[in-house]
Amino acid sequence: MTRCPCEEEVLRRIRPTPEERTYIRAIGQRLIEAVERSGMAKAMMVGSVARDTFVRGDRDLDVFMLFDPALSREELQEQGLTLAHRIAEEFGATWREKYAEHPYVNATIDSLDIDLVPCYAVASATEIQSAVDRTPFHTRYILSHIDDYADDVLLFKQFAKAGGVYGSDHMTEGFSGYLCEILTIYYGGFHPLIEAAAFWKPGETVDIEKHGTKSFEDPLVVIDPVDPERNVAAALSLSRMFEFVELARGYLEEPSEAFFCRGQSPPLTPEVFSRLLSARGTHLFALIFATPEHTPDTVVPQLRKSAESIRELLERSGFPANRIDVCMQKERCMLLFELMAGTVPVMRRHIGPPVSSRENAEKFLAKYVREEVFAGPYVEDGRYVVELSRPFTRAVDLLRSKVLFEVALGKHVRRSMKQGWTVKAGAECWDEEFAVFVSRFLDRSSPLARIKRTTGR
Amino acid sequence: MTRCPCEEEVLRRIRPTPEERTYIRAIGQRLIEAVERSGMAKAMMVGSVARDTFVRGDRDLDVFMLFDPALSREELQEQGLTLAHRIAEEFGATWREKYAEHPYVNATIDSLDIDLVPCYAVASATEIQSAVDRTPFHTRYILSHIDDYADDVLLFKQFAKAGGVYGSDHMTEGFSGYLCEILTIYYGGFHPLIEAAAFWKPGETVDIEKHGTKSFEDPLVVIDPVDPERNVAAALSLSRMFEFVELARGYLEEPSEAFFCRGQSPPLTPEVFSRLLSARGTHLFALIFATPEHTPDTVVPQLRKSAESIRELLERSGFPANRIDVCMQKERCMLLFELMAGTVPVMRRHIGPPVSSRENAEKFLAKYVREEVFAGPYVEDGRYVVELSRPFTRAVDLLRSKVLFEVALGKHVRRSMKQGWTVKAGAECWDEEFAVFVSRFLDRSSPLARIKRTTGR
Repeated sequence: MTRCPCEEEVLRRIRPTPEERTYIRAIGQRLIEAVERSGMAKAMMVGSVARDTFVRGDRDLDVFMLFDPALSREELQEQGLTLAHRIAEEFGATWREKYAEHPYVNATIDSLDIDLVPCYAVASATEIQSAVDRTPFHTRYILSHIDDYADDVLLFKQFAKAGGVYGSDHMTEGFSGYLCEILTIYYGGFHPLIEAAAFWKPGETVDIEKHGTKSFEDPLVVIDPVDPERNVAAALSLSRMFEFVELARGYLEEPSEAFFCRGQSPPLTPEVFSRLLSARGTHLFALIFATPEHTPDTVVPQLRKSAESIRELLERSGFPANRIDVCMQKERCMLLFELMAGTVPVMRRHIGPPVSSRENAEKFLAKYVREEVFAGPYVEDGRYVVELSRPFTRAVDLLRSKVLFEVALGKHVRRSMKQGWTVKAGAECWDEEFAVFVSRFLDRSSPLARIKRTTGR
Repeated sequence: MTRCPCEEEVLRRIRPTPEERTYIRAIGQRLIEAVERSGMAKAMMVGSVARDTFVRGDRDLDVFMLFDPALSREELQEQGLTLAHRIAEEFGATWREKYAEHPYVNATIDSLDIDLVPCYAVASATEIQSAVDRTPFHTRYILSHIDDYADDVLLFKQFAKAGGVYGSDHMTEGFSGYLCEILTIYYGGFHPLIEAAAFWKPGETVDIEKHGTKSFEDPLVVIDPVDPERNVAAALSLSRMFEFVELARGYLEEPSEAFFCRGQSPPLTPEVFSRLLSARGTHLFALIFATPEHTPDTVVPQLRKSAESIRELLERSGFPANRIDVCMQKERCMLLFELMAGTVPVMRRHIGPPVSSRENAEKFLAKYVREEVFAGPYVEDGRYVVELSRPFTRAVDLLRSKVLFEVALGKHVRRSMKQGWTVKAGAECWDEEFAVFVSRFLDRSSPLARIKRTTGR
């Protein structure tokens, strides 16, 4: 296959060196042998190292320990952790226990970041007892189908990383490594994939094994070749999908190395931030509280849900938002709201029942004729309308009030906010811990727009 | 029929005195004789005097001159005006020519306001050549069906007048006199009518002669007994209809003379107006220009249309309205807008095509990547969005700009505004010529709410 010069250049940069590959695989092999020597479990390398699709400098190695499916959950956990601890000690590693669906051991050996994960050695991917049991099947499938596409997968991953659409975590909502591999194999390489993606529509479906049995509502549907009922692209959002689509088009129009380089623009200084914000004339508010002690994949969706609920509350209260976003940092979380109004008239219209529905209409009239109102009830388009006063004329007062607890906040977010939260307004929203986040928020552009502007094309 | 005491009291107040009735009918009779003596036309009294449904103190008398339908339009006009002039002179009246669909003569005789209207003496109401030809049929129909309901019609008219829902002109959009008569006859008196109206729904249909042939979209449909294709209630708006409905319910609940007395609250002083407006916290703007030289029924719909177009323009420009209204006075017209915002951020979001529609998406991106923007294009829910600046951040600047001519204004309104207009803001909107109008605007309430508050019930 002939590649354009920029791709060859990128590959030279990102392809693991033979020494690197030999070294990392050797460590993996030693770990496998150690596991199997115990007689307690089989073992295999999974992930990009096993598949030879890792990018130069990656220090991640995943070794799965496959136990007898006859074990109970408790036995699996106990034996799995015992074995993992023993091996980590044997290798002289520093290690800690971590939790995903199950507990596992994360160890550092010779500056490699190694996960030792216990799972069941099930006979087929449709018999799995938890998501980790599926991973060995993914690795086997990719190994037996990757052919000569390892370089193509590397290019695609680097393209997706540089475009900010790589990663199936809840913050990114982009392409997982496995999804990149499946798509590259399905379309037959990086270039055919890019050419196809330029024409993707919402609901695009890829079924490499032609065995899908369910229908999905997701923007992109990629049936898992090892499980006909699973969409590998379930975590991909419509926005990330179409950011990739526009990148694909832009690259086809004018291929360049810029598409493989993550533009890491530095955060704005407080002064520039303040100046840009004044120029927009909008009303920015940040809600800040302590980060709940849970993984990002638990907390981030709750931040999103909470921000969306508060956006609706703001909207109902007369403060429509231009955009909102959320950020989870180590210490604190931020919900950011850019509003089109910071204050509203105290008068608000309250729309009542149609006058033709007699009982409701009479109740409504009787109620408001006795209350202090600005105007009404009057009849408009056949309904009663009354003009009342609202409790908050300043968005900042609403955001500082306990009314926030009346809307659907995520459980952990609610618990953290019960301990207190801070509201910042305008230029004050700039904060050391959130400098990158608030800078990107103001300066938001699609990845292709950013590349076009940077390269002046 | 037994009536409640308040109705008897009202009737005593509004029923014409026997002397008044004899006098006004005698004048009518003399005019008819004068017309018929000429040998040029037959004549008849029409309107409420002819039908004995006029309210005490009414000084309006309509005499129609029925010409041979074989005459051409020009002949009808010429002969009709000649005859009318001659008769007016003969009675020593001051008179002037006026125009509705046709020219006619308006004369003042003994302080009575008399219209002498030429029309065709057609054989049936379905053969009419213009709307005035229908009037004699209405008069004949009511005369032959009114039975003992003259008092009921008086009560209903007075009830509708006091409630502000009487009059089919474009400003009121209420009940015409003929509509009041038909409804009273159909339901069998004032009380049964009120009882039925309490249950009216939008689309309520009354077909007294059971001969309707067309379907109508109007809120109330009353098939004309002399013309199966006409809705007598076509001019009635949904709001006026349901203001009447709520009055009917309120009256049934607690009948009182208050329902027959027009509460003429005096206009607010500039000081009170200013205070009430500040309390609301809204942003009031008035557009004032010279009144076009046409009848209210031509101008008022154009004012409404213009105000609605400008409201949409304001909304699109970031200034949503709470309410708007229009007023036509002798010298000047006013379009009044109460806005929820007087200023908006200069940044506005502009929503582009879905990224999946490739050609449009590429054009959009290419355009805005080269322009000065606040942010974007970025991808949101699969579409491009870009954040641009808007031309007007203050509503008052928009209302003073020529952009108003880009929206659909009524023809005569546009012509008048071409000569210039004034924009007033806030308390400045109070103006001697519009004092009642702007006062009612701020203090808007349904007629029943007003009665309930006044009577403390």
